[in-house]
Amino acid sequence: MPRLRLDLAYDGGGFAGWAAQPGLRTCQGELERALSTVAREAIRVTVAGRTDAGVHASGQVAHADVPDALAADAGRRPERLAHRLSRLAAPEGDLVVRGVSIAPPGFDARFSATSRSYRYRIVTGPADPLERRTAAHVPHGLDVEAMRRAAAALVGLRDFAAFCRPREGATTIRELREFSWAQHGQLLTASLTADAFCHSMVRALVAACVRVGEGRLGLAQAVALLDERRRSPLTGLMPAHGLTLVGVGYPPDEGLAQQAERARARRSASDLEE
Amino acid sequence: MPRLRLDLAYDGGGFAGWAAQPGLRTCQGELERALSTVAREAIRVTVAGRTDAGVHASGQVAHADVPDALAADAGRRPERLAHRLSRLAAPEGDLVVRGVSIAPPGFDARFSATSRSYRYRIVTGPADPLERRTAAHVPHGLDVEAMRRAAAALVGLRDFAAFCRPREGATTIRELREFSWAQHGQLLTASLTADAFCHSMVRALVAACVRVGEGRLGLAQAVALLDERRRSPLTGLMPAHGLTLVGVGYPPDEGLAQQAERARARRSASDLEE
Repeated sequence: MPRLRLDLAYDGGGFAGWAAQPGLRTCQGELERALSTVAREAIRVTVAGRTDAGVHASGQVAHADVPDALAADAGRRPERLAHRLSRLAAPEGDLVVRGVSIAPPGFDARFSATSRSYRYRIVTGPADPLERRTAAHVPHGLDVEAMRRAAAALVGLRDFAAFCRPREGATTIRELREFSWAQHGQLLTASLTADAFCHSMVRALVAACVRVGEGRLGLAQAVALLDERRRSPLTGLMPAHGLTLVGVGYPPDEGLAQQAERARARRSASDLEE
Repeated sequence: MPRLRLDLAYDGGGFAGWAAQPGLRTCQGELERALSTVAREAIRVTVAGRTDAGVHASGQVAHADVPDALAADAGRRPERLAHRLSRLAAPEGDLVVRGVSIAPPGFDARFSATSRSYRYRIVTGPADPLERRTAAHVPHGLDVEAMRRAAAALVGLRDFAAFCRPREGATTIRELREFSWAQHGQLLTASLTADAFCHSMVRALVAACVRVGEGRLGLAQAVALLDERRRSPLTGLMPAHGLTLVGVGYPPDEGLAQQAERARARRSASDLEE
């Protein structure tokens, strides 16, 4: 069956996360229902970043193998199909299929991906009612320079076990390529990119920086967390609603199949969750 | 009674506008209820910009005359009082008292104000689920340069009758000081500042620019609307949820009383609504 690439955005507030769960409204569940309606047969969707309940996405990527007739429709009128799928999946408008295209050969939304990028937003000072669904709130001031130093010190190829929810037999070694903080008035935004993130890793990394910014954790202590083999009592966790998956990176088309094979080979050891 | 200045922000989505109305949840109604609870007597609030149902605010300003004890409390612990009022007025978090202070002599939130600034946000192209409550959506592309020319042509001291909801005996002459468009990816943001706006004027001005950007209205036609004595069938109206009151300007403290007197003298002729 031909494969479609789906580019997605959603407001995580109304979903019990990405992954389908019986009886719960999930992104995967609603999208598969919409695709199955249009295809007139059961369609499964594979995603690049399996986001938790409450986590948002502006640049999520998924793929689905679909019957020829639907693929032909996607080739002819991609915008119309994207719009139709959005309406079917979420008439409320909180999940949008931003684009539909025929996937290049070898493309796998999950295993071809070479990077995931997240953004975490924090409002400091008085609360901002217009950001209450998309940013965490820290009423006191934060030492942003100290947070920047902590973020920079955490970048690299490391074992992030202290920042991951434990999972039997899964590696927690990840390459954190970017972790930076931008400040615009009251709003602090963390930008993180890694080959992949393990479960709740972004929110734990951001929590460590916030504790440094509050003066509750020293820079050396934050970095020393990396030496822990499991999550420590010093590791916090920021709320889900401040987190957004903003993008997924793929190699050039000719490298898609090779990257997917490499990632699949690591699959037993490494469960790419976010 | 001493006078407090209140700096406010709200998500307009859950309110039937600013102005108190029996049986409806309004910003004024909830804030007066909170102040009256804390003051243990009925308190009235006067606001700089009486926003419509669904319109947001990040920089709204109001005043209230309160008993001495409450004013003393505001002087001693302004942050604690602001927090308490926010919790009482909107436990949902959609209205926040960002600051409370003793108003300088002569201060009147409405009549001392010399300018109001609004922002209107439009998402173009595919819908953005994270902006669906704070930006209008225009699925097709817009000619932003044409919109910029139209906005610039509308700036000035003019009779904006064609852009105002008619009101018996009220002047529609306003000084539009800024009207500009910024583009960040898919997001277009209009910034408007005037001495005051009449009812629904911002949304009508933005609608005219959008029609120019769509090629449905020529630049000359948009400007010619200014010659109309009343709202024309060519005047559109953008939805409320894209609009935010972002700031109110006041003269230096020594000019507050004089400005208020001047504005009050114009009151019968000019009803400052937004």
